[in-house]
Amino acid sequence: MTKLPPHVQRARRPEHKELRLAAIVDSARSLALEKGVRAVTLTDIAARAGINKSAVLRYVETREDIYLRLTAECWSRWAAALREALGKRTDGTADELATQLCRTVVDQPLLCDLLAHAPLHLERHVSADAVLAYKLAALAALDDMTTTGARFQPVLEDGEVRELISTTSLLAGALWQISNPPEALARLYAEEPRLAHAVVDFLPRLTGAARTMAAGLAVRAG
Amino acid sequence: MTKLPPHVQRARRPEHKELRLAAIVDSARSLALEKGVRAVTLTDIAARAGINKSAVLRYVETREDIYLRLTAECWSRWAAALREALGKRTDGTADELATQLCRTVVDQPLLCDLLAHAPLHLERHVSADAVLAYKLAALAALDDMTTTGARFQPVLEDGEVRELISTTSLLAGALWQISNPPEALARLYAEEPRLAHAVVDFLPRLTGAARTMAAGLAVRAG
Repeated sequence: MTKLPPHVQRARRPEHKELRLAAIVDSARSLALEKGVRAVTLTDIAARAGINKSAVLRYVETREDIYLRLTAECWSRWAAALREALGKRTDGTADELATQLCRTVVDQPLLCDLLAHAPLHLERHVSADAVLAYKLAALAALDDMTTTGARFQPVLEDGEVRELISTTSLLAGALWQISNPPEALARLYAEEPRLAHAVVDFLPRLTGAARTMAAGLAVRAG
Repeated sequence: MTKLPPHVQRARRPEHKELRLAAIVDSARSLALEKGVRAVTLTDIAARAGINKSAVLRYVETREDIYLRLTAECWSRWAAALREALGKRTDGTADELATQLCRTVVDQPLLCDLLAHAPLHLERHVSADAVLAYKLAALAALDDMTTTGARFQPVLEDGEVRELISTTSLLAGALWQISNPPEALARLYAEEPRLAHAVVDFLPRLTGAARTMAAGLAVRAG
């Protein structure tokens, strides 16, 4: 993102070290938003941050470590966005909760992209400490969202709200990859009428599934 | 799988070519079942099939092409297994349909593993022709399962059955990766009580979500 001034590049003081880590994470974030998580290399991130690749590895373990930190950060932003979207209401419905979950996740394209990468790639290329820190942060966000969602509406209890959120996050991760196909496949979708059924429009498809899930949970709860 | 006799290795006749392709696909299948799709390389597959790596590339485009062929094959096996499980009944429920969908998919660990890899990796490393052939095969299996599922029970119509199947397949793909964590993470799950909530038991979790989805679809349909 922003190249650091030379005195920060050396990073002798703790506050400079934090600035450097922030520059690395910011660079990884902006690159992933531009071209997708899959396409970003550690070399790209180092170049954008204006830091040597070997120096980057003094602040983070791997490329995957950077993206796992960003996944944790995105989960906590999602929790904050849901809190803000639901406000102080306590008379909501499970259906509204499902809709707001989807609206707030689609506002975070980086999270949507990272959700499938985390278990498939990111968690597999970091230390146990890094994966533990990530898992605890994601679970804390899920707990927060569960509390928020349970307070918002009187029908679903904590366990059901939690199931709704975690299933929505799994579907969001899978649907994001399918609704953002590689160029060659996107061209096929546009040209080949037999593939009309395979095209996925992310938000409507996710919202449809989350609302159906909420309706099913409400039936069981009732 | 099986090393081919020398006269087949040369593969001058069409039936020998088919035998070679089958040996390559069989080797990829057995290796993936042993150590997971992620870990299998083209070199592994060639070695197990007893064919030179460069010769393998005369029969398939890439490692991903082989696994995309296997994904198509697995989809059609899933469709056949569902047809067999549901039999000739027409008085089933949406709940039974959801349960049978999950039982038949868990019987195919290779499909469960491939479901997340297909959009994330496989479709991105093959030609347009290969991805088209795969998509058409998967859509044909989905059509077949939709017909089977709609006939089995009188509540959900074709569109709803199709939604149930495709959502179940997306969840199966995501949950499989999470419920089969890398060794370091599995150890963390076992040792760290704070992660108790993060452990996922594949079949019960998938079946719970699919049944909830079916209940929600039935409410809408009714």
